[in-house]
Amino acid sequence: MASGTAPSDRPRPVGRGPKVRAAVLLATLAELYEAGYAEFSIDNVAQRAGVNKTTVYRRWKDRPTLVVDAVTDQIAIEMPIPDTGAIEGDLRELALSLIKTLTSPIGRALASIMLAAAHVPEIAEVKHRFFDDRIRHAEPIVLRAIQRGDLPADTEPAELIKALIAPIYLRLLITSEALDQTVADQATRIALAAAHAGALTRRTRPRDRN
Amino acid sequence: MASGTAPSDRPRPVGRGPKVRAAVLLATLAELYEAGYAEFSIDNVAQRAGVNKTTVYRRWKDRPTLVVDAVTDQIAIEMPIPDTGAIEGDLRELALSLIKTLTSPIGRALASIMLAAAHVPEIAEVKHRFFDDRIRHAEPIVLRAIQRGDLPADTEPAELIKALIAPIYLRLLITSEALDQTVADQATRIALAAAHAGALTRRTRPRDRN
Repeated sequence: MASGTAPSDRPRPVGRGPKVRAAVLLATLAELYEAGYAEFSIDNVAQRAGVNKTTVYRRWKDRPTLVVDAVTDQIAIEMPIPDTGAIEGDLRELALSLIKTLTSPIGRALASIMLAAAHVPEIAEVKHRFFDDRIRHAEPIVLRAIQRGDLPADTEPAELIKALIAPIYLRLLITSEALDQTVADQATRIALAAAHAGALTRRTRPRDRN
Repeated sequence: MASGTAPSDRPRPVGRGPKVRAAVLLATLAELYEAGYAEFSIDNVAQRAGVNKTTVYRRWKDRPTLVVDAVTDQIAIEMPIPDTGAIEGDLRELALSLIKTLTSPIGRALASIMLAAAHVPEIAEVKHRFFDDRIRHAEPIVLRAIQRGDLPADTEPAELIKALIAPIYLRLLITSEALDQTVADQATRIALAAAHAGALTRRTRPRDRN
């Protein structure tokens, strides 16, 4: 190997635009898996991606911005929005893919960010935006079901998605129970029963946060 | 003030038995409020309680044991199990008192323990026991409703309590939304709709954790 100061030991250029972005986000995930959020270093990310640190900082102003971008990208890939033709199947698929994600390395990285969020205001803010975005992303499932006449017309999509994911996060973060298919089945039945009982309408929606 | 080595500066004895226990648990809460879990010190607790450190260690083998004992005691005081005569009123009262607790200083101390649990196995274990115990404590609400014929006979009490608290913890830990009375109302409606739809029976209960 060349010495540390030799030009050949510098990060190799990975090109511009989308290629750089992809390389840095991939390196971010690798760094998260191995180091966790607490030990996460942009220096290491730059080295893994083969780019200069300044290249990273030009696109992502800080650690939380970079991490959330990488995790959001990956979750979007791992959690496509199902379209089975029936609301029950769609919700079950969505619950199952959330469970698969939360129990995978990327899920553990996400959990590590959520834990950090309690102390760092800027992470709390990106965390809020992240979940807002994820919930909105799943809303078409509910809108399609309303159009088919399978759900009450005044069902609030975001409230139904939250009713579906709440039992899953309770088991992950509070009661430490196994996350498996029966959890997905139960979450689906709870969300559907609540929607049909009219508990998830605009009228019953809790007010926005303060 | 006497110098640090003068006998008058030693912790004053607070007596034996229940009095010592009460003094130490109160000091533990005070230390949690002011220092948080990360900075929590048994030395400081002993000093606040006016007892020797060895007195604390004789009763509580370590930091997590002491903290969980103090928080559990306080939560039991702050969250009496309601008995309004109707399941809807009982669930709403329970949801409201959980919200009140989670948004109080003791709730923030509890959150601080939950966050620490991700990294410390012994805290994860006491956390699991703590929530198990709290959920079991609330089960009479459901059993009374079944006896009155207000809920399906095969409703699983713990599953109904979890359906009630899941939307509250989702808003606290994931979506960072305001916790207020409309959240309690919606959580009550979700849990009741799920119970009446038969989604919270032994048959539909997810398996115990691995």
